[in-house]
Amino acid sequence: MNIQPYEHTVQYYETDRMQVVHHSNYIRWFEEARTYWMDMIGVPYEKVEELGILIPVLEVSAQYKSMVTFGETVLINLVMDKFNGIKASFSYEITEKASGRLCTVGSSSHCFLDIKNKPISLKKNNPHIYEIFKNAVAEQI
Amino acid sequence: MNIQPYEHTVQYYETDRMQVVHHSNYIRWFEEARTYWMDMIGVPYEKVEELGILIPVLEVSAQYKSMVTFGETVLINLVMDKFNGIKASFSYEITEKASGRLCTVGSSSHCFLDIKNKPISLKKNNPHIYEIFKNAVAEQI
Amino acid sequence: MNIQPYEHTVQYYETDRMQVVHHSNYIRWFEEARTYWMDMIGVPYEKVEELGILIPVLEVSAQYKSMVTFGETVLINLVMDKFNGIKASFSYEITEKASGRLCTVGSSSHCFLDIKNKPISLKKNNPHIYEIFKNAVAEQI
Amino acid sequence: MNIQPYEHTVQYYETDRMQVVHHSNYIRWFEEARTYWMDMIGVPYEKVEELGILIPVLEVSAQYKSMVTFGETVLINLVMDKFNGIKASFSYEITEKASGRLCTVGSSSHCFLDIKNKPISLKKNNPHIYEIFKNAVAEQI
Repeated sequence: MNIQPYEHTVQYYETDRMQVVHHSNYIRWFEEARTYWMDMIGVPYEKVEELGILIPVLEVSAQYKSMVTFGETVLINLVMDKFNGIKASFSYEITEKASGRLCTVGSSSHCFLDIKNKPISLKKNNPHIYEIFKNAVAEQI
Repeated sequence: MNIQPYEHTVQYYETDRMQVVHHSNYIRWFEEARTYWMDMIGVPYEKVEELGILIPVLEVSAQYKSMVTFGETVLINLVMDKFNGIKASFSYEITEKASGRLCTVGSSSHCFLDIKNKPISLKKNNPHIYEIFKNAVAEQI
Repeated sequence: MNIQPYEHTVQYYETDRMQVVHHSNYIRWFEEARTYWMDMIGVPYEKVEELGILIPVLEVSAQYKSMVTFGETVLINLVMDKFNGIKASFSYEITEKASGRLCTVGSSSHCFLDIKNKPISLKKNNPHIYEIFKNAVAEQI
Repeated sequence: MNIQPYEHTVQYYETDRMQVVHHSNYIRWFEEARTYWMDMIGVPYEKVEELGILIPVLEVSAQYKSMVTFGETVLINLVMDKFNGIKASFSYEITEKASGRLCTVGSSSHCFLDIKNKPISLKKNNPHIYEIFKNAVAEQI
């Protein structure tokens, strides 16, 4: 499986008075990339939620390497670093599309909850989705 | 009942590369003012939702008179123009606190839904809240 | 010139606790559609700003017809209704891509400013861009 | 100097379809708390920018301990951990006001830029602001 990086065109409303993208928006772009990646591996997040599984964010971090501005498009590469059915973590790399310039790197970690917000093990709760994630991690190595 | 105008301090993340507040944020400030106003008249919106009543936005409009920027604080005056238990409408006036400068005027209209997203009449569904809104409109006149 | 409608995939961060897209985001989507449209007719907004021309929003309105939620993609049709070089107005129609369901209609009006925030006439200030907008309006009729 | 924690009332538009505050908004609240803290120590950020000094974010991180929802108010405690005139870092603790429940902890690091986006040393560039930050760090210990 060869997933193309997620592409995001900078929007005017994402810029701030420093004339660059506000730093909080990269955290939103990480989420956009995760959503896209889940679509690509065949477990759209809205379908996962319909099955009563939530995947909240436990931790997030970003390091800003160069500023991005309006008129630019970025590519977001995402790797699922770790996954054991109880927790999952991702790392992200954002580059400017035209120049290849590195803009931001980051990470996020997540757990799995049922609709009562109780932590679950995906391996028990939904072996099918568990296998898809497991395979996705393996193929990335 | 004499409700003080709602006060909002402009945040950096609300500005855009034109170095002023992005126009979409005023729509959010209207919501902040509604939420505050409902607190003030004794029907906090989170309590209304707990009773299974949603108040979605049907229409919204804003006219921008002068730009607001970081470092400024605005006052938002809100009037509930119309209310019949089935629909409600509000008008808004945003002024800069220090100068009194008129910044934005706007309006919103709303209906009332139950948790199945079915329109309801507040008069039947919750006469108590109906009366509070009814009185709020009357006192403003 | 036949411009395809602008396409936007709903993001998780655009939803609110009513489990649908927050109403303020449609105002942002109108802006996304304008930016796209300006790209399509050959006057990318970032290039217009580089020429020292700003196009702020004077008025905006939206009427919400049906709710949009996570997992859906919308199409945004935009028409430049009026343009005389001093003011411009647009109307918008948002439909859900898969079903064709009408979601939101809206409008915005704008003026043109120089970098000192002084209103300008595009016909005098930049006849080239004036002609492009003028033609765009004509072709839509 | 005894600075009260910054207080933020959760807004409806800050929630997402998981019915809690979207994780990206805590990053924005960190910024709100920094802006407030700079006001409190006597160097409002808008004044610093007027002097041609920008303080961009180099890194940000957040760990989510418990979810915050609409109807709640949070207190944000901020400490400037490190400051040497070239870089500065902050740590944050967000608690729910009514219960004292720990919600989020986080950190951010920053540098100082002139208006040409060139890194500067505050000690050389503006000794007055340098001293205020230096004292602020000392008093926190």
